[in-house]
This record gives sequence, structure tokens and C-alpha cells, in this order.
Amino acid sequence: MESDPPTVHAFAGSILDRRAELRGSGRKTRAVRLAGDKAVVEVRDSGKHQLALFEAAGGMCVHLGIGPDGDAIVAEETKPCELPEGQAFIDLRSLAMQGLLARGELAMLAQARSLLSWHASHRFCANCGEPTQMAEHGYRRDCGRCKAQHFPRTDPVAIVAVRRRSLCLLGRGHAFLPGMYSALAGFIEPGESIEEAARRELFEETGVVVGSVRYHSSQPWPFPSSLMIGLLAEGLSDEIRLDASEIADARWFTRAEIELMFAERHPQGLRLPKPAAIAHSLIREAAGIE
Amino acid sequence: MESDPPTVHAFAGSILDRRAELRGSGRKTRAVRLAGDKAVVEVRDSGKHQLALFEAAGGMCVHLGIGPDGDAIVAEETKPCELPEGQAFIDLRSLAMQGLLARGELAMLAQARSLLSWHASHRFCANCGEPTQMAEHGYRRDCGRCKAQHFPRTDPVAIVAVRRRSLCLLGRGHAFLPGMYSALAGFIEPGESIEEAARRELFEETGVVVGSVRYHSSQPWPFPSSLMIGLLAEGLSDEIRLDASEIADARWFTRAEIELMFAERHPQGLRLPKPAAIAHSLIREAAGIE
Repeated sequence: MESDPPTVHAFAGSILDRRAELRGSGRKTRAVRLAGDKAVVEVRDSGKHQLALFEAAGGMCVHLGIGPDGDAIVAEETKPCELPEGQAFIDLRSLAMQGLLARGELAMLAQARSLLSWHASHRFCANCGEPTQMAEHGYRRDCGRCKAQHFPRTDPVAIVAVRRRSLCLLGRGHAFLPGMYSALAGFIEPGESIEEAARRELFEETGVVVGSVRYHSSQPWPFPSSLMIGLLAEGLSDEIRLDASEIADARWFTRAEIELMFAERHPQGLRLPKPAAIAHSLIREAAGIE
Repeated sequence: MESDPPTVHAFAGSILDRRAELRGSGRKTRAVRLAGDKAVVEVRDSGKHQLALFEAAGGMCVHLGIGPDGDAIVAEETKPCELPEGQAFIDLRSLAMQGLLARGELAMLAQARSLLSWHASHRFCANCGEPTQMAEHGYRRDCGRCKAQHFPRTDPVAIVAVRRRSLCLLGRGHAFLPGMYSALAGFIEPGESIEEAARRELFEETGVVVGSVRYHSSQPWPFPSSLMIGLLAEGLSDEIRLDASEIADARWFTRAEIELMFAERHPQGLRLPKPAAIAHSLIREAAGIE
């Protein structure tokens, strides 16, 4: 039996016991608070912040799990507001990319952000249009009229680093920061395997034909609720025929260029994702960089 | 670069060109027809049936892709009805399990079933309750009031064959046919990696602690829209503590028993999934059966 994928990525690695049968239990209940993509943290001078835990306000909240001390942890949506000395709102991407929180606390925020976002955008029954009510401590919404039960979405995404000979195919989306390139990615559609979705996306976006596809690792990505399925693939063709409606650019990169980009010393200022993103690990692996 | 997973499972392996930019194109348009989980097929005496293709009726349909002959293939929902001599409604599970259709045609039906089911159950905006309209040839629904865009769901499921020493852990759901056991499975929740979900599900349902988790292969499962992510995992504990609200039974099986079950010669009449289900491949691999 092989071992786990080498990397447990940011936003995974929860320290909570998420078992469904424990929902609603716990010695006492404490709450993490988010306002949009920002969470309330206790700021530490060391730069190793801690998640702020509050008495539950008693309003709408979702259950996250049972903490190591036996307390139930829930998540509450709050509004941006003044905070006491020592606390701050910091956005989840910064917390992840700058390593400001322990992995287990970051994973709690990923779970919280996805669930709260789902409730906020799914207050009505998609089947009949009636308002729905939260059930199962935040893991279901029920329609009182048509009796439909709705479950939180998790949207699987194939994210793929393509290698051909010694080159890696990377691209940039229209919304990327200037100079940023990454592994190409797309949502897996109904009726596709992971491997088929990877090949379709690559061919759609770049015209490059992909042969073998190998699973690498996975990462929850709570913006709002993706499951990034990281893959390494073998390119079977060279020519790039860009679909400009989907991506802004795609190029083949040498290992030397990729090393310069990781080191932020590329002559044209090109850059790659930080270690917190699964794409970072995929690109390192595809380029053969330890 | 390793090659693909060994198996392309039933419901994957589409022969259509699904590229988004080709939607709405095609030399002419032909339609497959489904009534619930049944599709219209041309019955052949050989048992190798063919998917029936119709002139598109012009009503609600979803685009599936461009066929090998350049025709656009769409899917239409129909009602159970009398069919001409030589045609029959056959349900998708039978078509898959009995190998009645070529793989590429079965994959078209998986895609069709998932998309049509999504439209049927998502006619209203989950954000505001207003009726929504189909867009992008069936790959989006738009709300005219709040402008929300809704995309088809694909629900990732972790399906896991657990091995410990020479034994395999298998279970049965409350809705399984009598005597049927399979790999245990559960939906991946927001904020979990695939590997975390596998461990949580196994521990929730059976109390067995799982260590390393290895990806095997994936299968679209159109009932209504799951993506089965097949995993092999290493059990770290023996004792089974059943959660009877989730599953009806779980047991450790020897390789000899599993061989009898595959051969349908188990003394208690216990059985395992057919080759069309990803669980079949996972159990073979976990038991070390070629």
C-alpha cells in the first residue's frame, strides 16, 4: 500500500472531529466568526496568529466539529466591525499564503467559509422556489412545501500540470495578478471522469492533446466551495491554440524558468503560486524540482 | 510519467467532443431520449443494442457534444410511451451492468441523465426564489431577477476499499439488494480533502481507523450526478463499531470469500458489484485478485 500524497495542503488538515453523529454535542459551544472572506483572528507579534473563539451568539450558525478539548465549534457570519485591541479581520487567502495560522485552524475556516456561503446563496428551494430552512446543524436545507432536501455543494475541479519532454505547460486566467502563471484548471462536468475532464479542459483552453493523467493530491478551496483535484499529465502535442475567451495566455516553460519564477527572479517578472496552493506542488513535481 | 488508471469505467469514455466552444454547432442535430432512468435504444438480437437517435423535437434539450460524424448530439426528456418495433426503454443501470451498449454510448447517457435531472430539479433560483432560464446550451441557468448564474452540480464521492493484513472491509447500505456488499462510500463535504473525507466516512460508519489512502480511478455515476472517486486505504484498527443509522452492516472479508462472492458461489449468498461499478475494481485490487 503506498502512502498518502506527499502534501497535506493549506485548508485541509482539520483538527476537528467532523463526524455527523457528533453534531449538536460538545461540552460547550464556541464560535469562529467570518465577515465574507475575512476571519477574526488574535494577532500575535510573532506573526503566528490564532483563530479567535467567541461565545456563540445564538443566531444562525453551522456546526464545524468537536475540538480537541471536547468543545463544539460552530461558525457564524458577522459584519465588518471595530474589534478589540489584539484582534483583526484577515482574509483567508492571506492567512493561507503568508502562513499566519496553524493548518488545523485554517482548515476550520475553509469549512466555515464554504458552508456559510452555501447557506447565504441557497435560501430558496431550487425545485419549487419556496424559502428553505437550515437542518442537520448546517449540512442540509429543507423545503417545507415540496419536501426537497438540499445538500451543500462541493465542486470538483481538475487542476493539471502538463509535462512534455522537459517543458511544463502553464497558463494564466483573465483575473490573475500581473505576471502570474499557474497550472490550468476547470470544473469537472456531469458525466465525466476526472481524467476525461482534465483532457477536455486542456484541449479546450490550449489545444494541447493530453495523454496519461496521474492523480497527485487534493485540496479544499473555499472560494466558495471547490475541491481541487491535482493531476500531472503528459502532453502529446506542442502547438498552443489559445481559447482567449477562457484564458489570457498559456506557454511552455523550461525548468530553469520555473526555478526563476519560484525564486521571484524571472527577468519579465513572471511568478508562480505560493506553497499554500496545490498548483505550487504540482508545478514543482512536473518540473522535477525537489 | 505513470499511465492512466487501469480502468475506464462504465459511464465514462465518451466518444463526443464536449468542448464548450462547439456547443450549438454541428452539421445537423440528433437527439437521445430518456424517460427518467430509462433511455430509448435500438434492440439487437445479439444483445449489443444501440442508442436510438432521433430528429430533435425542438423543445427543451441539453447539448451533449459533437459526434464522430460531425453531428451535434442533444438529450431530450420524454415520457414513457409505446415505441416502434425494435425500440425499447431500458434503464441505465441494466445497460451498464449487462453490457448492453458500447461504452461511448453509455457515457452519452450518463451525461444526459445528470444534466436533465439537474434542470428538472433546479427550475428556481436558490438565491432569490425566482424561476430561472436555461443558458449555455444546458450548462447554466440564469436568474432574470437577481442575475445569479447557476451551474450543474457534480457531487464528489469518496468510495473506499479498506485492506488490513489480508482482509478487506466491505459494507452494505440499507437500500442494497439482499446479500450485496460493496466498498464504503460517502459524499465529500466542503472543506475536506479527498483523503480526509475517506477517513471520516470510514470512521463514522464503521469505527475503523484508516491510515494511508491511495487514489485508484474515477467514475461518473449519473444517479443523479455523482463523481465516484475510487480509493484504496490501509486499515489501522480491526474492531467494527457500526453506525446503524448510516449502514446496515460492515465486515472484514477474506480473499477466499471475496472470490466466492464474485463467482456468486458464496454459501450465504453474499454478492459483490458487477464490473460496471468502480467498487468491483477497487475490491479486486484490495483483495489482490487479478
